[in-house]
Amino acid sequence: MVKFLRERFATMAPYHSAYLTEGVILNSNESPYSVPEELVAYMKERVGDLLVNRYPDTDSLELANAVAKVYDVKIENVVCGVGSDELIDCILGSTLEDGDKVLMPYPSFSMYSQFTQLNSGQMIKVPLKSDFTYDVTAIKEVVCKEQPKVIFLCNPNNPTGCIFTRDEIRSILEVAKGLVVVDEAYAEFSEKEISMIPYVNDYDNLIVLKTFSKAYALAGARVGYGIACEAVINLINTVRPPYNVNIFSQAIGTWAIEHRDIFLENARRIVDNRKMLEQGLRNLGLKPYPSEANFVWLTLPESVFEALEEKQIYIRKMKIEDSIYYRINAGTPEENNKLLEALKVLV
Amino acid sequence: MVKFLRERFATMAPYHSAYLTEGVILNSNESPYSVPEELVAYMKERVGDLLVNRYPDTDSLELANAVAKVYDVKIENVVCGVGSDELIDCILGSTLEDGDKVLMPYPSFSMYSQFTQLNSGQMIKVPLKSDFTYDVTAIKEVVCKEQPKVIFLCNPNNPTGCIFTRDEIRSILEVAKGLVVVDEAYAEFSEKEISMIPYVNDYDNLIVLKTFSKAYALAGARVGYGIACEAVINLINTVRPPYNVNIFSQAIGTWAIEHRDIFLENARRIVDNRKMLEQGLRNLGLKPYPSEANFVWLTLPESVFEALEEKQIYIRKMKIEDSIYYRINAGTPEENNKLLEALKVLV
Repeated sequence: MVKFLRERFATMAPYHSAYLTEGVILNSNESPYSVPEELVAYMKERVGDLLVNRYPDTDSLELANAVAKVYDVKIENVVCGVGSDELIDCILGSTLEDGDKVLMPYPSFSMYSQFTQLNSGQMIKVPLKSDFTYDVTAIKEVVCKEQPKVIFLCNPNNPTGCIFTRDEIRSILEVAKGLVVVDEAYAEFSEKEISMIPYVNDYDNLIVLKTFSKAYALAGARVGYGIACEAVINLINTVRPPYNVNIFSQAIGTWAIEHRDIFLENARRIVDNRKMLEQGLRNLGLKPYPSEANFVWLTLPESVFEALEEKQIYIRKMKIEDSIYYRINAGTPEENNKLLEALKVLV
Repeated sequence: MVKFLRERFATMAPYHSAYLTEGVILNSNESPYSVPEELVAYMKERVGDLLVNRYPDTDSLELANAVAKVYDVKIENVVCGVGSDELIDCILGSTLEDGDKVLMPYPSFSMYSQFTQLNSGQMIKVPLKSDFTYDVTAIKEVVCKEQPKVIFLCNPNNPTGCIFTRDEIRSILEVAKGLVVVDEAYAEFSEKEISMIPYVNDYDNLIVLKTFSKAYALAGARVGYGIACEAVINLINTVRPPYNVNIFSQAIGTWAIEHRDIFLENARRIVDNRKMLEQGLRNLGLKPYPSEANFVWLTLPESVFEALEEKQIYIRKMKIEDSIYYRINAGTPEENNKLLEALKVLV
């Protein structure tokens, strides 16, 4: 065990991951498209007059204001973070006493359990149904029985692509005494009206998390935000590190949300690419599960993963219980075709 | 109390701070000089080809490599963070069990106690001597008696400007069973050889923290690093959030460390400005304490603070026990003169 490490972290290992910049990269749910030329031009123009020698605005007010305007909420309803990851950590850090229960459907975004462990919480995983859709009845039963301090609902779900309807989320909110975190990182890709943002002020235990990493193609900038009633925003601000979002990411995020039409159009293009990918996979006899996000979830014959990697085609491999599944995000049509061509001889 | 908030955080309030962009800003120990023109030109050139749509390298390897090269250590001896703040949090988060003791001299950097409280530790403050120099004997006594899990030594000290000699730090390292964090955020401004970086591999309980926010004039980029033996770096990497440093800050930090001569020259200029400020203050009958950093520490007549603020001259006010002190960082000669002119009629 690493010297000085807390005993309860003994099983944890330092996290590392290769930085891929070449090949067909379909393993991180990133946008296959570069940022818009207009944004590059804007940054070239701004970079000289940003006050880089000064600490950034600790409250990211310009960005928060732009977010508030788009969603028709008050600036007091918004908090910005280093991706939504940091906000997940702040939510858990501000609320969890040692051993407190946290609920997540399973499988879902791995950082929920990672940050729960780091914040000394105890994760309760409620399995998805066998068709990888949410089991709302089971979730509500566990919520009523255990009353977890925090409940994570990823909508659409990473890595399976399934969704909750608004009514389903409302029904969970109504039985939950704890904080319900609705993570809408992928909501721009859904063709259904699922966002809970219009309802944040109707609940004192709801927060919606959003990120610029997916539909806005800005994963490299590491910026996200949360929208909730003012009391929940204050909760996060009590533990949020000062000056958390750097000045470049604040500027880029602000530009992006003010030009969201460009990105939403791109998101629709990515959904088309996902549909093309789904059809191509089905043509090969594969069975991707229905998805409302920018990726698909499926099983593949063994050895495909390694064979693809040899061709510099990267997809995500995940072990769920005793089975192996794969998550593949939509690439450009060209990238999708490279993947499908490669799969043709492998499946 | 904020709903859902952990009971032990009940006395904590959301942190906010005004974002100052105009006036004479001498309250945050920032550089009064903009970033070098060469860096602006570099960023304009790079911003179009940075892969902003991809997650950044989770290990900031390019930056870590540049840091390792400059300090003649291995890349395994380096970890990068969102300022050194994030690394302080990771050090405490990876080591502290509930109620574990942490030591800091007092006054020193406020984030040591802030992050200790957030990580459920118990802070022991060892007062500086009455002349605001470090009380090494007292520190060693408390270390031997309490054996804190983590010991923070800020060198030079923020906010007083005093320093430890290397021998003093070695003598603390030799009696400490816990992790000794030497925060060298301001070391570039010291005219003495104080850095412990050359000795990180001689100790399994030493880590040196560095930031780009001070001598490198990059506070807005929020990037810092830690240098330690590999085991201590692994400790931090066990809890460090993935993809913590965004792609812009990684690129800028890398450029900065590779062009450190530009910044070190600037640091010398800032030290000259501090000396000019000290002399000016003494000419007014004020008594700044000796400083090895880019700021001075002193008492001022009451009401000066508000009077300066009315003239848009910002300095830092701090309450230590029952007395009020002020920390003023060196500005440009012009800014120093504005402050000194204003003080002339106030003291």
